This record gives sequence, C-alpha cells and structure tokens, in this order.
Amino acid sequence: MSALSAPAAAETPRARFRPPAVPQVDVRGFWGARVDAVADKTADILYERCVEAGMLDQIDPDRPVPELRIPFMSMSPAAIGKPTFTASTVTTQMFWDSDLAKTIETAAYSLYRKPNPALEAKIDAVIDMYGKLQQEDGYLSSWYQRMQPGLRWTNLRDCHELYCAGHLIEGAVAYFQATGKRKLLDIMCRYADHIDSQFGPEPGKKRGYCGHEEIELALVKLARVTGNDRYMKLAKFFIDERGQQPHYYDQEARARGADPKDFHFKTYEYNQSHKPVRDQDKVVGHAVRAMYLYSGMADVATEFGDDTLRVALDRLWDDLNSKQLYVTGGLGPSEANEGFTSDYDLPNESAYAETCASVALIFWANRMLGMGPNRRYADVMERALYNGSISGLSLDGSLFFYENPLESRGKHNRWKWHRCPCCPPNIGRMVASIGSYMYGQAEGEAAVHLYCDSTARLDLGTTAVTLTQSTNYPWEGAVRIDVDVAKPAHFALHLRIPGFAAGARLRLNGEAVDLDRSVHDGYATITREWHAGDRIDLELELVIERLYAHPDVRQDAGRVTLKRGPLVYCLEGVDNPVGLNRISLPAGAALRAQAEPDLLGGVVTLIGGADVDSTEDWDGQLYRNEPPKREPVTIKAVPYYAWDNRSPGEMLVWLRRG
Amino acid sequence: MSALSAPAAAETPRARFRPPAVPQVDVRGFWGARVDAVADKTADILYERCVEAGMLDQIDPDRPVPELRIPFMSMSPAAIGKPTFTASTVTTQMFWDSDLAKTIETAAYSLYRKPNPALEAKIDAVIDMYGKLQQEDGYLSSWYQRMQPGLRWTNLRDCHELYCAGHLIEGAVAYFQATGKRKLLDIMCRYADHIDSQFGPEPGKKRGYCGHEEIELALVKLARVTGNDRYMKLAKFFIDERGQQPHYYDQEARARGADPKDFHFKTYEYNQSHKPVRDQDKVVGHAVRAMYLYSGMADVATEFGDDTLRVALDRLWDDLNSKQLYVTGGLGPSEANEGFTSDYDLPNESAYAETCASVALIFWANRMLGMGPNRRYADVMERALYNGSISGLSLDGSLFFYENPLESRGKHNRWKWHRCPCCPPNIGRMVASIGSYMYGQAEGEAAVHLYCDSTARLDLGTTAVTLTQSTNYPWEGAVRIDVDVAKPAHFALHLRIPGFAAGARLRLNGEAVDLDRSVHDGYATITREWHAGDRIDLELELVIERLYAHPDVRQDAGRVTLKRGPLVYCLEGVDNPVGLNRISLPAGAALRAQAEPDLLGGVVTLIGGADVDSTEDWDGQLYRNEPPKREPVTIKAVPYYAWDNRSPGEMLVWLRRG
Repeated sequence: MSALSAPAAAETPRARFRPPAVPQVDVRGFWGARVDAVADKTADILYERCVEAGMLDQIDPDRPVPELRIPFMSMSPAAIGKPTFTASTVTTQMFWDSDLAKTIETAAYSLYRKPNPALEAKIDAVIDMYGKLQQEDGYLSSWYQRMQPGLRWTNLRDCHELYCAGHLIEGAVAYFQATGKRKLLDIMCRYADHIDSQFGPEPGKKRGYCGHEEIELALVKLARVTGNDRYMKLAKFFIDERGQQPHYYDQEARARGADPKDFHFKTYEYNQSHKPVRDQDKVVGHAVRAMYLYSGMADVATEFGDDTLRVALDRLWDDLNSKQLYVTGGLGPSEANEGFTSDYDLPNESAYAETCASVALIFWANRMLGMGPNRRYADVMERALYNGSISGLSLDGSLFFYENPLESRGKHNRWKWHRCPCCPPNIGRMVASIGSYMYGQAEGEAAVHLYCDSTARLDLGTTAVTLTQSTNYPWEGAVRIDVDVAKPAHFALHLRIPGFAAGARLRLNGEAVDLDRSVHDGYATITREWHAGDRIDLELELVIERLYAHPDVRQDAGRVTLKRGPLVYCLEGVDNPVGLNRISLPAGAALRAQAEPDLLGGVVTLIGGADVDSTEDWDGQLYRNEPPKREPVTIKAVPYYAWDNRSPGEMLVWLRRG
Repeated sequence: MSALSAPAAAETPRARFRPPAVPQVDVRGFWGARVDAVADKTADILYERCVEAGMLDQIDPDRPVPELRIPFMSMSPAAIGKPTFTASTVTTQMFWDSDLAKTIETAAYSLYRKPNPALEAKIDAVIDMYGKLQQEDGYLSSWYQRMQPGLRWTNLRDCHELYCAGHLIEGAVAYFQATGKRKLLDIMCRYADHIDSQFGPEPGKKRGYCGHEEIELALVKLARVTGNDRYMKLAKFFIDERGQQPHYYDQEARARGADPKDFHFKTYEYNQSHKPVRDQDKVVGHAVRAMYLYSGMADVATEFGDDTLRVALDRLWDDLNSKQLYVTGGLGPSEANEGFTSDYDLPNESAYAETCASVALIFWANRMLGMGPNRRYADVMERALYNGSISGLSLDGSLFFYENPLESRGKHNRWKWHRCPCCPPNIGRMVASIGSYMYGQAEGEAAVHLYCDSTARLDLGTTAVTLTQSTNYPWEGAVRIDVDVAKPAHFALHLRIPGFAAGARLRLNGEAVDLDRSVHDGYATITREWHAGDRIDLELELVIERLYAHPDVRQDAGRVTLKRGPLVYCLEGVDNPVGLNRISLPAGAALRAQAEPDLLGGVVTLIGGADVDSTEDWDGQLYRNEPPKREPVTIKAVPYYAWDNRSPGEMLVWLRRG
C-alpha cells in the first residue's frame, strides 16, 4: 500500500498536540548530518547573501534609503517602453523583511545546535536595527517605512505586509527559544499589538487579511509562547474573514483608485480568497500561499477545537493527495502562478515544485497532527521531508534549488542564491528545526511521528518523559526507543507505523505487541504506566517498492518509480551513462538495495537489471517502421534528495516500464 | 521504409529546374479545396487584419505617423525582470511591410484562382501607398521612413530591413504574374536597384546582409521574372558574404555605438551568420531564418551550378532530417529562439514548430529540386506540406496556428490573428501557390513532384506540354496522368515514387514500366517521344505505417505514431473520449482505413483496437504499488493537419506502445 493511501481521519475528538520546541530534541543520524550542514554552512551563507543583496541597507534607519531595484529591462533600441514603478508593482525588496526573518530563524536553530558567536552578534545587530526602525505605534516594515512611506495597509493583496510581520514573529519566537533573548520577541509583540489594533471585526478596524498567508500561523506561535490569547483570536479572525463578501481586496483596490479587475493573477484563487475558507474544497492558486493558509487553519482548528475548519482541511487534504501531489511530495507544477493547475497535471521536467511549497506542506501536515496522531498526515509529511523538500539544499548546505523537477537534462543545477530568495532560508529553518517535527506532545500523550536517531524531552503536562531513539533509519528499519521518566508515569505513547511498512513488528521490553489491535489511524498506541528503562523495539520492513501513478497523470503513463522506506529514488546520468529515457524497467526485474557509505554522504542505492533501446542500427534515420531493439543494462538509482550533488547530468524519477 | 530515409543525392550534374508559375497549374482535388478556402476567406481576412492592426497607417504617407506599440510587460513575481515579449529587440511594426507583402502575395494567387475585384482594388490602393512612400533614390521601408527616420542601414542584424524588401519583391513578382500589373514590380525593381547600389563587394559599398534571411531568395525570383542578372549576383553576394570575418554585425554594432556582445540572442547562430555558409554543418538558430537562408543558397546553387553550396546544403539537410525534424515536418522546438535546440530534442506538447518554419522548409525542399528531381527532398516537402504546415490553417481558411504542437490538452486552439502575424499570410501564400510545388520544368525535362488532381502547362524550353493528373490522392493511391503535346516531342518525364510506396506500379499506355530499372533518386524517369493522348497510370500503395522515433528522442520513447501515405495521424479527444495518454497501442493491433466523406471536409480515418488504462479501481489513490489494469478500447485517428477543427479537446500524435 502506498504511503498516500492512509486511513481516513479519526472521528473522535483528540487531545490538542503541540510540537516540542527545537531545544527539546537532540537530533543525530540522518537528520543530524543535515542539521549540521545548516549550522556549519547554510546559516552563515544566508546572512551573507542577505547582506550582499542589500537588505541591511533597507532596514537600517541609520543608512541612506537605498535605490529602488527596477526589474531588468532590455535596453535595445526597440524596447522603448521603459517600465514605470507603480504601487501594484512587486519587487523582491517588498518581501525582504521575510527573507531576513527566515534567516534569523535559521540562525536561531543553528545557534542552539552549535554556538556561533560571530553569527549571533550579526543577528543581534540586525535585531537592533529593527528595534530602531520600529515606529512609536509599533508598526514595523522596512518597505513601507523606508521605500514606500505613507502607503501602509493600502494594498494587502499584493504587497506582503502582514506576511513580513508573520515571518518576523516566527523569527522572534525561534530566537527567543534558542537564545533566551527577548528583544526581537518584545518588538514583535508590540507590532502584533499594533496589528491587533488595526484589524478585527470591531467597528473602525480593517476587515482585511494578507494576500500571502503567513501571519495566521505566526500569531498562533506567538500566542503559544507568550500565552497571550489575543494573538490567537487575531489569527482566527484572519482565517474567518478570508474570502468573505463584500470582498476586501475589491474594496481596497477601489479605495486606492484601482480597478479590482486589474489583478495580475486574474482570480482570487491565486491567494485562496475566492471564497470563505470553510467552503473551499479544491487546493488552488499559489502553492506556498495555500499551504501556509491551511497550516494556519489547522492551528486554529486545533486550538479552538473547530471541527468546521477540520472538515474543510480534510477535503483539501484529500484533493491535494489524490490529484495534485508529486510522488516526491513536491507540489505546484506551474511557474506561471507558482502553483496549482488542474487535476492530475504533474509534468516532470518542467515541474515548478518550489522548495518552499514542500516545506510549507510539511508545516501543514505537521499541524494536522496537532489534532491527534494520524498516519494520513504523517506519511505525507515524511514523504515531503525526505524527498521534495531537502532536494532543495545541497548535501554540504551551500547551494539551493528553487524548482524541484522530477526529470532533468542536466541543465537544472543548484544556485548560490535566487533573485526571489524565499527558498534558501525556508529550507534552512525547516531542516534546522527538524526535531520539532519528529514528536508530538499532549496532556498525557506522546507521539513519535518520525524515526531518527535522537533524544526528545517531552512535556506531557503532569509528566516529563525522555525518549531516546537509536536507529539507522531511513537506511535500515530497526528502531529502538528507550523511555526515561523520573518516576513511573501513566501516559499513552503513539508510534507511527508508516504506510509502506506492511510487515512491521513491535516489541515492548522484548514482548511482541499485537499491531492489529493497537494500531489506530496508523499509529500503534501503548497506554500504560511507564518506567525508566522501558524499551521499545520497532522493526520496519524497508522493501523496494514500485510505484505507479493514477492513469490520469498523463506524464507518468507507462512509467514506474522506485521507493524504499520514505525515499523516492531517481536515476542520474553520472551512474547511468545512456539517455535515461532509453532505459525501461521490466516488470520482473530483480532489484537489490546496496549500502554505499562513501557515496553522497552515505546512502543506500538500488541496483538491478533493465533494458536500453539500442541506437546502433538506425543508420542516420530519425523515424523508421521497426521499433528499437533492446539490450540489457544494469541501472543504479540514488535517493532523489541527493541528486545534482555530483557532476551535472540527466536525472529521471519516472522510468519507462519495460 | 520511412519517407525520411531516402536515397542519397545524385552525383551527376542535372539540368536546372525551375518551378512553374502559379498560373501554369490548375489545382483540383485535395489541394483545390485548400486553395479555394484561401481564395474564399483567407485572402480577405489577411487584408482586413492588416488594416485592423494599423499597418496602413504606417505605410500611407498621407496619414499621420502612428504611435509606437510598446510590448506588454509582466508584473508576475515569478517573472520579475523577464519581459513577456521575448523577441525584445524588435516590435511587430518593424516587419509590418513583410506582413503586408505576404498578404499581397496571397491575394495575387487568390485573384488568379477566383476574381475578387473588391480585394484587388484594396491591394491596388496599398500598392499606390508604397508608390507614394518610395523615396527618390528608390529606398522603401515604412519603418525607417516613418517610425525611425534617419537610421536606415544601421542595424541589419535586428531590424528586418532587407527582409521586408525581400517579401515586397516576392509580393511584386506574384502580383505581376497573377494580374499582369507591373506597378509594384517596377517599384521593387527600383528598390532592388537601390539596394544593389548600396551593397556589394565593390569599394564604398556595404558588405552587410540581413539578420533575417529572405532577400536572397526574393532576388532570385526577381532575376528570373525580369531577366536582370544583377539581382541574381546580388543574391549570391548576400549568400557569400554571410558569416565572413571581420563580422559585419560586430562592425555595425560598434558603428552605432553599441557593444556587439549586447545581442539578445547571444550567438550569431541565431541568424546563421556564425560562420561562412559553406562551412556550416549544423542546422541552428531561428528556424525560419535558417530555412530561408538554405532556400536562397539552393537557388544560387542551382542558378550558378555552385557545387560548394550544394555540398553544404546536403550536410545541413542530413542534420535536419536525421536529428531535428518532427515527424509532422515541423521544426524548431523552442519558443526562446523560435528555433533549434539540441540533437533529438523534440518535445511534443511544448513544440514551437512554427507554421512559418514548416512553410519555409517546403521552400527549401522545393528549391533543392531545382538541382534535379530527388525523393530525398521531395518526400520531406510532401511530409511538411500535408502535416506540419497546413495544420496552421483551419479547414475553412479563417483561423490560424502559430505553434504546431504534437500533443495538446485541448487549450491550444486556433487564433484569429497573432501579435507577430507572420504565419497567417505565410501559410496563405504557400497554399494558394501550391501548384508551383507540384511540378518542375527544365530544358527537355518535366517532373511530377506531388500527386494531386490538377492540370499543368509546362515549359520545357523547346517544348510545351500539358499534364493532367486525375487522382483522389492522398486518400487513394491511383494516379492517372494524361499527356498532351501540340506535336510529338522528345523529353524526359520524372515521376516521384514516394518512399512510403514500396509496392508502387507504373504503366505507360497500359504497359508495365519496370521500376527497378527506371527509378533513380526515387523518381521513375521515362524518356521518349511523347504524343498527345499518352497515358500514365501510377498505383501507389497507401499502407498504414507504424513509425518509431530514434531512441535518443526521449519524448517519443516507448511511443508509436500512425501514418498512411503522406499523412501523419493523431488522436483527438472528440473521437476518443478518454485521457489520450491512458491509451496504448499493442504491437499486433489491427487497424483499418475508413473513408469518411462527411468528416473534416472528407478524410480517411484509421480505426482499430487498443488498450486503455482503467481508473476504476484506484479508490482515490494517486500512487499505488500495482500497475493500472487495462481494458480494450476502439480508437479513431484523424489526419494531423485537420485537428482542432471541431470542439476543443486533447490531441496526441505519439501514442504509447502497448
């Protein structure tokens, strides 16, 4: 059974689960190496690239206001029409606060992982700039204060104003949790207070919401860390208000003298404000926007026990997972809207599948787990984590993908940076905070969502428990979990049984646990009085799976892909020096898993026999009446996330069936 | 054997063949209906669209100078800095003279086909405008005289100046041949004289040539119709000079104060001036430019008996036909350069395959036949004619394709017009002049290149001969040719035996002709004294072929297409109401040809059994471990050229092999 065909949502209400903070989990093993790469390289690189881009010139009130970067225009004699910058023109500078904020967040988690006084001093300096920049009333936006003064709150639809606030809030929470320093958190509480004074259902307040969702989930984080319920209510307001009529963006456009129809993306589906969120049943528009919205909705559903949101989220989850998700956990196939197109439209070579979108899907899936452990969400979170998200970061943490295609001719290679630098700090902060995705904690309940060598100190309300995982997952399927409690404690421990692991076996202190009885929603639950020294052994079978796509995915018709455990595999030209589409994999071909500790930081490759179409007897013909002859060939597949870390070459996820 | 694998070029010199003028051939049957559609609709539509676009405002010196049209710029954050209008070095207005000229040319052929006094009066008025516009010295360019005065001959690389002259010359020759009116011909002779006074190897003249080839082949036409050898020599000069060092475009750029490196398309391969033409061995750059160049080269090779050009042309022909040509005769897969990319790169759904490029390939192939009948060229001409070119014109002659993909999701539909309106008048003039592609005439030799119900009055130097073809080709393979001569005459008659027609049979006055002995270069030659009433019967077998692409064409791997006679077939959604990529065609599936006189103006369809991947047992899964189940389905294929003439829907040329 595929990981995407998980059991349906639970019908009974569950405890409210919250993820552990980053400092609660020590990560080793597979993810430990990834976190180290971010702490060792990415965090510094992100800061340096932000500086090179000129971001500090924009936020630091002590520096001259920088020039506006006008999008590059051809200066040829014929391109006489020079663009004029208008209020509705988007430049990268408009969302620079968000890029700096995600850089701060990445740095925060990295500083927890490894002290880095030089980086910490630089981040402190950036925070000081924001402190100076903040206005008396709490308002804080380097764009609207320095680049477009006088226009605040006039174009929520296009200009990322609340989005930037949201990311700065996330950065503030992370920096506080990792370093204990409150300055940015206090700044952002003042700004959140100001936003709360401007937006809301009360008379005289704006009933608006951001064109790029993010503030919602950020306010939930802020509410959780401060205990201030007003932020939680404001998050719910933004969710509830979205897409209501009369439409805020129509009114706002008219208020600034613009025609509401003059919207570049034509439809409010682009920012998911085409209808109230509880009425939405199709995943549409800009992929990252959609995932951030659903993340916020899931948080609000959890915190308010709002089943009307939960029902809508499950419809959207079904839609994404049954019709619009790449096998890698990538999503949003189209560059035009950086988002969704039509059902089953999943082009491979031209896939946009932005790194940020997979990261954001992980956010959403993780927040669905707030409503209780459920493999339906956790399997997808794992799929996106091990494939379509970390493919966006080179193994050494220094280079990035924006798009994550499933096929390449060898010219899609990692970048040092991007003109729209959203992805590098997004993958950075996600990897560096991976520990908080592995576990869930609720009153009297603990959940293990992901298997990875790690130690988690969980807060179950009246009880604290330390779980220590020892495992070489995802390369091997054996997981040992040691339980430590200060004194015997009664709680439920939920252990995810991945959808791919049909033959899983579980033992508690050496005694077999009957999975048929103990598994609900794809998690084995053991409720008992736990003692220090209790030991769990979970054995997951990591078989090599062949996956086939739904016949309406025309791009994958007649094709097959390989998967082992959570990892989707691909062929790379460097391992398979023939045109990859000349290869076909017969149904009965034997494949074996081979551990290669010296390859790509240590991976398990898949090796087997296949056929290759011969080019030898074509005699200069481009077309002929005889099909190509076939010859045997040995193929080697590597995990998708690790591609393009060697010499550039072809890459292919979906192989032709023989 | 596929039509693309024809015999190699003849090694012995041949007579110089020239195509008959349009009035020499009366066309009926398949092409007669197409010519009628152009005469009845397209010719008027082209004129009206030119007027609507404002072209007359630009050329008429009695009207105010119109505004410059500024290309639209995208405001998409995903496209920051990327102009939507990719050909950013030009505006459409710069080549409006050429669009009007091709409209005049289409009108000329149409007026010969069917009198249309209203249209003729409008064209006469346009010619009067050009007469008024022409300068004392003969110069004539509505762009440089009205829109960018003072800059003539300063940017041959980008600005289509000689290209426009070439098209106006072609229009002038056609209008003279069809109507006997000399005014435009005289205007263009004066302009050609002026060009001849400006360009050439002599001291004081410019050694430049146009960034968009066209003037070369036009000057050959002008030389042939006027008998003025200076035009022929000027054509040869432009050919010979192209790509020589020091590079003219480098010098020209510096002369206008520009950096030669500041060229939008980066490489002079774009306009085939990267090296002297005789050294070129790869078909590169902008597809239409390339084909127009090779057409001019072929004309010059024929007229000057220049074997150095012929050798280069054969290398280029091989390259195109063995590595870069769609099975439809489409070419130039990429939108970015409107041209060629890399060997075997033939994407189907995103194929650019501009209508103009296939038309231009027909020009080239036809001119290769100037050096003697040879199936190597004629088969490809026929392939492009019946497939990738006329696909660009709706059956009723009113709507157009610019791109001709080989796969569509149903959203690629015919347009009324195009911002760059080169294709509509190009396909219009080609179809309306189809008769001149069917035959070749030389001293003592006649050739039948294409089979179609028609009557040709050929000039063989000392002899005139009338050939009357009676046939229902391409739907049926029987062709009867009646020969009429005023008195018995000795000449060679060359009859093409298409590459697909392995079992062809030929009879002369009822007696079998031995094809093994009489066929050279794919043409059966009968040399004898011909008498009025001589009758030829040719029987071509129109079998249903399966074609397979070279294994390096990754987009066609594991796929097959269907062909019958010269026609490539496709599936359309309207006939096959399942996702077309769910269908697979087993190797042994029986297929039958079925005449459907009421469908699409009368076509032969291909009908047979295939398999379809079932979607029934997927239960909402997007991926699973079992391949799709297959069910039987009956498929119907229609000729590719006729697609998108009914309700919009999917289309597919390359079917999955079962």
